[in-house]
Amino acid sequence: MKIGLIGFGKTGRAVASVILGNTDFCLEWVLRKTEKLENRSASEFLGLQSDDPGIIHSTENLDINSFLTENPVDFIIDFALPDTICQYGEIAAKRNIGIISAISHYADSEKKLLKTLSETTKVFWSPNITLGVNYLLFAGKFLKKIAPWVDIVVIEEHFKQKTGISGTAIKIAEALDINESEINSVRAGGMVGKHEVIFGFPYQTVRLIHESISREAFGNGVIFVAQNLSGKSKGLYNFEDILLPYFTLENQN
Amino acid sequence: MKIGLIGFGKTGRAVASVILGNTDFCLEWVLRKTEKLENRSASEFLGLQSDDPGIIHSTENLDINSFLTENPVDFIIDFALPDTICQYGEIAAKRNIGIISAISHYADSEKKLLKTLSETTKVFWSPNITLGVNYLLFAGKFLKKIAPWVDIVVIEEHFKQKTGISGTAIKIAEALDINESEINSVRAGGMVGKHEVIFGFPYQTVRLIHESISREAFGNGVIFVAQNLSGKSKGLYNFEDILLPYFTLENQN
Amino acid sequence: MKIGLIGFGKTGRAVASVILGNTDFCLEWVLRKTEKLENRSASEFLGLQSDDPGIIHSTENLDINSFLTENPVDFIIDFALPDTICQYGEIAAKRNIGIISAISHYADSEKKLLKTLSETTKVFWSPNITLGVNYLLFAGKFLKKIAPWVDIVVIEEHFKQKTGISGTAIKIAEALDINESEINSVRAGGMVGKHEVIFGFPYQTVRLIHESISREAFGNGVIFVAQNLSGKSKGLYNFEDILLPYFTLENQN
Amino acid sequence: MKIGLIGFGKTGRAVASVILGNTDFCLEWVLRKTEKLENRSASEFLGLQSDDPGIIHSTENLDINSFLTENPVDFIIDFALPDTICQYGEIAAKRNIGIISAISHYADSEKKLLKTLSETTKVFWSPNITLGVNYLLFAGKFLKKIAPWVDIVVIEEHFKQKTGISGTAIKIAEALDINESEINSVRAGGMVGKHEVIFGFPYQTVRLIHESISREAFGNGVIFVAQNLSGKSKGLYNFEDILLPYFTLENQN
Repeated sequence: MKIGLIGFGKTGRAVASVILGNTDFCLEWVLRKTEKLENRSASEFLGLQSDDPGIIHSTENLDINSFLTENPVDFIIDFALPDTICQYGEIAAKRNIGIISAISHYADSEKKLLKTLSETTKVFWSPNITLGVNYLLFAGKFLKKIAPWVDIVVIEEHFKQKTGISGTAIKIAEALDINESEINSVRAGGMVGKHEVIFGFPYQTVRLIHESISREAFGNGVIFVAQNLSGKSKGLYNFEDILLPYFTLENQN
Repeated sequence: MKIGLIGFGKTGRAVASVILGNTDFCLEWVLRKTEKLENRSASEFLGLQSDDPGIIHSTENLDINSFLTENPVDFIIDFALPDTICQYGEIAAKRNIGIISAISHYADSEKKLLKTLSETTKVFWSPNITLGVNYLLFAGKFLKKIAPWVDIVVIEEHFKQKTGISGTAIKIAEALDINESEINSVRAGGMVGKHEVIFGFPYQTVRLIHESISREAFGNGVIFVAQNLSGKSKGLYNFEDILLPYFTLENQN
Repeated sequence: MKIGLIGFGKTGRAVASVILGNTDFCLEWVLRKTEKLENRSASEFLGLQSDDPGIIHSTENLDINSFLTENPVDFIIDFALPDTICQYGEIAAKRNIGIISAISHYADSEKKLLKTLSETTKVFWSPNITLGVNYLLFAGKFLKKIAPWVDIVVIEEHFKQKTGISGTAIKIAEALDINESEINSVRAGGMVGKHEVIFGFPYQTVRLIHESISREAFGNGVIFVAQNLSGKSKGLYNFEDILLPYFTLENQN
Repeated sequence: MKIGLIGFGKTGRAVASVILGNTDFCLEWVLRKTEKLENRSASEFLGLQSDDPGIIHSTENLDINSFLTENPVDFIIDFALPDTICQYGEIAAKRNIGIISAISHYADSEKKLLKTLSETTKVFWSPNITLGVNYLLFAGKFLKKIAPWVDIVVIEEHFKQKTGISGTAIKIAEALDINESEINSVRAGGMVGKHEVIFGFPYQTVRLIHESISREAFGNGVIFVAQNLSGKSKGLYNFEDILLPYFTLENQN
């Protein structure tokens, strides 16, 4: 599967490294705003062995329309800025290129654009594209549905300097319909991200825990999504749409 | 809903206390082998306030057929010995009384009997009837289905004297298709039962944890099962059959 | 060692059960305010096998002076109300009976009385007399001394109905000189008491965790204290005074 | 304080980065076997801002005696191979340069050399030079001394490919005098190093947990050791010798 990656910050690079290391996927190119690294290859820059071309280009010097004609891909992976979709979205959709966006926050106009694009091609959006966090949301919602009365508390741990409640913790609170006051934000030292959801029953406790190890988790999430989208037709998808088919009755043994 | 309870050991008593405390359920009677406590009421013995009759009888002095005629119930809850089902099963099924069994291990002949009885009435069997453990099994199987390649390890903690691997840990290993060598049994002091399933991904870790607090969890499990069985027709059910309907597409928001 | 116990509430009973089960100690008597259970024995009431007399008396009907003459003990264990010390303190000190108090909060006048009594006999006071919590305080203070700059956060978990921050968490915050805002109080379901102290370093994290199992932990704490006080001379002691001798240079290997 | 670093593998580099970032310490030079990186500076190679010289030299081209004459330091930090001490030890000791070694395993002859060198200068050796792990060992031994009968179990978690029991877990088992059979080695995915020591009491549980975040922890350990050694006279020291003075009676408040 041919992949084009837009955005090459810390997370974009980690995603690139995972795609470069997966033989089922080929990183055709990387697009980014700045002209730094122009024409270098992602694998050379990251110090990885790979046959993928993965040449880095700046969007400043590029006509996206002719670029996509000369460098066609199956999916565009978007780890850039929210409004980048406005630059490439329609051109990609017209060519039936699938769009996988991991942008954290979109403006309403951008969400509307995603909806419009999804009438022409496959469009996937998840503000956190890791398998683990999305599983946590899914499994947590399920337990809440079984036991709507259960007490739910969230503990999230991050490094000292991180300000505000983590975005993932807020998403968990929304998904489980609990107040933000039930989120405990722990900040100390260099702690790596951890999210724990406690389900307190009268006579037993269930805990769902997600621990981040590194940003490459986003790359594996992208690959999981791309593989699961490949058989699907045009439309707007989120992570739950991808997970749900694993849960149909005929799959249960 | 009228409940008859068979078995009044430590767990049976805890289950009785939960049923006595729930106004949607009425503990009609308790049956047990020994004649100790004969004709005392469960609520008086347990020191609980309740209007439920809950009189304790010994099976030694009883004709079960005429007993069930005079003391009809909607469900029989079985926390007795594996072969007790042979004494009351057919008589109960004939009267269309639902059977909820929490027996840990049945012989093949008893499993066959359950199957036969289920052609006449509702029969439910779960070796561990707590909501939390069954949720863990269910949620764990789902994650394994999404990511069959993930590394799975189980840690179970119990008090020092407990010998052998915990039955629940073995069930988890079976459900997730991992070797018993992947179960770590920790024994120290008076630790209360804890089961942790670790799903190790390359760049993230997911942990599902169940902590027991007290045996009353079995009582809440019984109530959950009885409520969810009440609309169902005859047949043989396990806990997964009860959980699955919460997961249908139309329930997802 | 002969023990007299004052106070026979939930914790007092648990402490009595541990003393009754320890052959190095003899529970001579129990004193409590109410006349309920008057003249019954603690072991009979608790359903335990023991040769200890352990007769229960009400302080209402008693002249403490003559009672202690007829029923001498080595230590009085106080799990009663804060002002109970005023009733028996001087009489006990005069007889050189050691006093072990586990009262949570004393008024200033009562603390002063303890100080005065300690000029005559051994007086020990710890608001939480479990070995585990006191070890946590001790080990935590030590780490803070080694690394005064480390980030410290406390998470305490208790059952849903518990209001306010736990007293133990407040003690931890005082001992480690952190703000109460660094305490996260988690309340859900029937969770049993857990205290976790997180020490966040830039590149590593240390966690000290104490999990309660049952109130009998207070009984074992009492026994540990009594054993360690037995060689000591008159004076006022706290738990740290008991732990510190284990730490002298000659004990290190 | 002037520091010379011997060894520049993964851990050596992480240690260099911490020293370069600490204004109380100056990284004078780095020695390593290979000629790669010869004459580059550690800060330039690591992409860090620093005024420290920190020039990298190969031991192949060097007369250590004249090198130390021209490039004197207060401490040599050794993250090289076990037998490297034989090359520089006597020369350094003669010049009264302190030696801080973080070598995991020394042969008996090398241990003997350390002993001999310590008659002339300060020699420190710790197979794991992080503050956290050494605190865990220290605090664990203390609890074991208080409660020698307590049940102790170790759980250590690492990435799937790690073979054998972790060296730190073995050290913990030795320090606490428990069998290796009480160590549970969990291997899954990309899990970062975690060591948990469980102390199981009858009615309560204490857990001491160390979680690694990154190798820079070794650098902070080196700095802690160097600061604490600076006032000390010649002799052979280990981490416990450094921690113990924090624990003297007069330090207790």
